[in-house]
Amino acid sequence: MNAEIITIGDEILIGQIVDTNSQWIGKQLNKIGVSVYQITSIQDDKQHILNALKEAQDRVGIVILTGGLGPTKDDITKKTIAEFFHDTEHIEYPQVVTHIQGLFKKINHPFKEIQRTQAKLPSKATLLMNNFGTAPGMWFYENKTVFVSLPGVPYEMKGLVSNEVLPRIQKQFKLPFIIHKTIMTYGQGESTIAERIEDFENKLPAFIKLAYLPSFGRVRLRLSAKGDNKKVLEKELDEKVNELYQLIPEIITGLDDDASLEKRVGDLLKMRNKTIATAESLTGGKIASTLVSIAGASAYFKGSFITYCAETKINLLDVSQETIKKHTVVSKEVALEMARGAKQKLQTNYAIAVTGNAGPTSDNNDKSLGLVYIAFISDEKECVQEFNFGQPREKVINRTVSKSLEILQKEIL
Amino acid sequence: MNAEIITIGDEILIGQIVDTNSQWIGKQLNKIGVSVYQITSIQDDKQHILNALKEAQDRVGIVILTGGLGPTKDDITKKTIAEFFHDTEHIEYPQVVTHIQGLFKKINHPFKEIQRTQAKLPSKATLLMNNFGTAPGMWFYENKTVFVSLPGVPYEMKGLVSNEVLPRIQKQFKLPFIIHKTIMTYGQGESTIAERIEDFENKLPAFIKLAYLPSFGRVRLRLSAKGDNKKVLEKELDEKVNELYQLIPEIITGLDDDASLEKRVGDLLKMRNKTIATAESLTGGKIASTLVSIAGASAYFKGSFITYCAETKINLLDVSQETIKKHTVVSKEVALEMARGAKQKLQTNYAIAVTGNAGPTSDNNDKSLGLVYIAFISDEKECVQEFNFGQPREKVINRTVSKSLEILQKEIL
Repeated sequence: MNAEIITIGDEILIGQIVDTNSQWIGKQLNKIGVSVYQITSIQDDKQHILNALKEAQDRVGIVILTGGLGPTKDDITKKTIAEFFHDTEHIEYPQVVTHIQGLFKKINHPFKEIQRTQAKLPSKATLLMNNFGTAPGMWFYENKTVFVSLPGVPYEMKGLVSNEVLPRIQKQFKLPFIIHKTIMTYGQGESTIAERIEDFENKLPAFIKLAYLPSFGRVRLRLSAKGDNKKVLEKELDEKVNELYQLIPEIITGLDDDASLEKRVGDLLKMRNKTIATAESLTGGKIASTLVSIAGASAYFKGSFITYCAETKINLLDVSQETIKKHTVVSKEVALEMARGAKQKLQTNYAIAVTGNAGPTSDNNDKSLGLVYIAFISDEKECVQEFNFGQPREKVINRTVSKSLEILQKEIL
Repeated sequence: MNAEIITIGDEILIGQIVDTNSQWIGKQLNKIGVSVYQITSIQDDKQHILNALKEAQDRVGIVILTGGLGPTKDDITKKTIAEFFHDTEHIEYPQVVTHIQGLFKKINHPFKEIQRTQAKLPSKATLLMNNFGTAPGMWFYENKTVFVSLPGVPYEMKGLVSNEVLPRIQKQFKLPFIIHKTIMTYGQGESTIAERIEDFENKLPAFIKLAYLPSFGRVRLRLSAKGDNKKVLEKELDEKVNELYQLIPEIITGLDDDASLEKRVGDLLKMRNKTIATAESLTGGKIASTLVSIAGASAYFKGSFITYCAETKINLLDVSQETIKKHTVVSKEVALEMARGAKQKLQTNYAIAVTGNAGPTSDNNDKSLGLVYIAFISDEKECVQEFNFGQPREKVINRTVSKSLEILQKEIL
C-alpha cells in the first residue's frame, strides 16, 4: 500500500518553517508496512489543494494531509476537502465543543464563538479526537482511498497519528512488511565502498534495495526488503548483512538499530551504572543537550561546563594558564585538561571535552579553521583526537557533536 | 515567476532524514522574488523522476532538483534528466576531474575511476562548479523552463545556490518583488486575534495576504505583498502594519526582522557591550548552544553551567542545600540562586537560569510535570517567572528555550 503526505501551508513554501511532520509520519507509516510514495507541500490555496487531492488519489491508496485546520480565514483545508467530496452538510460534535471549552478554561482564556467552527466537520468525515488541541482530525474513505486530515502542530499531529490513524489503517488494509537494515561504516567514501561491493549489489534480488547514505563523514548502507512473509524477509536480509560483513569487515562499525546515537550512549551508561559530564567550547552545550533529549538522562548525565572563552576555561575547569599560552586554546592539551576538570568537579566516571575553531574567520590562511580536538577520559584511560571538519561553521559544530557521541559509544562499549 | 523544488531520495520518504534543503532554498528564492509553488519529495526511481519533471514543467518556470547525484548505482538523477531531455551525449569536464582529485588528495584517499563519472555531464547541461564536493550542479534551459539539478548534501547545495543559481535566475527572468512583514504577538490565541482584526482582514487588497502562524505560545501575523514596484509595496505594507499597531497595540511585541531571536539577542548584547552566562537544568545546554549558533558569539557569551542534578547545582553554582530542601529543585528560589551563581562565577552582566520538570513521569498526578521556572538577573535587577508548558518532553524543552530567549531580548532592550 502506497501513501502520499500532503503538507499545506505557505509558511513551508516561503521557508519560514522546516516541515518535520512529513519525516515523522513517513517513519511511522513505514513501520506498519505502508510505503510513502511522495511528499507534497502546497499552498493554502483552494485550487491547489483540490489539484493535489486529485493527483494523489490517482497515485496512492492513502492520502494524509496536515495543516490548514485553524479557525482563521487563511486556514481552508476543511472546507476545501468538503468541496472535494461534494459534501455540503456539516455536523457539530458536542464532545469537541466541551473539549475546546476545557482547553480554554485551563489557560484562563474566554471561549469565543469562532472556536465553535472547530467542532463542525463535514458529514462524510469520521471524527478523530485531538486531545492536545482544538482542531479535530478527520478520516474519509471514498473511492477506495483513505483521506486523513490532521492539524499541523507537531505534537497534536503525532498524538492523532499514533492513537487514531495507524490503528485504523492497519484495520482497513492488509499490509505487507517493510524491513530496513542499516549498516554503519566509517573511513571510506561511498564510491570506494560501491566498487568493493559491486558484485553483491548486482546480484541483489528485486525485492531488496540498497542505498548509500553518506553523512558527517560516515556512510550508512541501507538494505530494504518488502514482502508478505516477514520471516522470509528477515532471513534474506540477515543473509545479505552477513555477506556485507564478509566483504567489508574492517569498515563496519555495527548495525543501526534505529536508535539514535544519544539513545545508545544513554542505554550503555544506564546499563553499566556509569555517569558522564561534558566540557564544551565550540559546541556551546550541544553535546549535553543532545544527551538530555533522551528521557531519563538524569540517571547518567550529571552536568556540563560550557567554557566559551579562555578565561572561563581557567576559572571553571582549572585549565592552566601556561598550557593555553604554550599550546593555544585549540589544542590537545587544553582539551585534555578540560576533560579532567569536568570529570573531577562533577565526580563522574567519564568526561568528554571539545575545543576547536568553528569559524568563520576573516583570515583565509587561518590553519586552525575547522580544527577540533575531542578528549575522552574515564577512570582508566585518557585519549584525545584531532579532526579537521573544514567549513562552514554549522558543519563543524554538528560534526563535532556527532563525532563526540561516536567516540563515547565506542569507548564505553 | 513560480518555482517547484523537487527533492529526490528514498531516505526522505522513509523518514530517515528531515528535508531541510527545501526550506532553505524556498527562503532564498523568495528573497529574489520567486514564489515557491510546490515542494515535491520523490523516490530514487526513474519513472517517478520523469513524471515529476513533466508535472513540474506544466506548473512552473523554474524547477530545482536536489539529490541523487552521487557516484553510486542508487543515484540516478543525472541519467534520468538526460533521458528527459533526449540528451544522449556526455561531456567530461577536465576542471571537475582535477577538482575531485584535489579533494581526494586532501583527505588521503585514492582517486577511483568511478569518481570520473562525476565529471561527465549531459551535453545540454551548463556546468555549475561545486567547490565543496564531487558532484557538480547542472543548469538546463529547455522549453522556456529552467531546470537546475543540485547535490543533496546541504552545504554543497547552499554554496551552489548562493554563488551560481540565484545570480543566473536573476539574469534570466524579470522578477517581481515579494515582501513579507511579520508582526509578533503574545498572550492571545489566533482565534481571538482574528476576531479583533476581522474588518482589517476583509478590507485587505488582493495583492496582500495575511497568515496566522501560531507557535510555542505566540502568534505571528505575516503580511505578504507581491508586485512590480518595491516602493509602493513597502508603503502599503507599512500602512497595514500601522493599522495593526492601532488595532491590537497591547499584544504586539515587535516586528520580525527575519533575524532569529538568538541573532537579535546577540546583536543587542554586542551593541551594548554586555556579557551573558546561562545555568541550565532541563534544557541541558540548549539555550547556550542556540546562542552560540550565531557566529561571533564569543564577544558576549562567556559560558554556562549545565546542572542536571541537585548535587551539581549545589557544587557548581552554590545553590544552598536548605533552599532545595525547603522549596524542591523545581522552584523560583532555586532558579534565582542558579542565576546568581552563574553570574557571579562567570562575572557577566546578565545571567539566565532555568529549572523545571520536562517529564515524562510515571506519576500521572505529578503537578510539577511541565512546570518551569526561568530566572533572569542583571547588575540592577532580579526576576523569576513560572510557566507550565504541559507535555510532551520535547515541547517543554523547546518552549523553555524560546521563552528564555524572549525574556532575554525583552530585558536587555
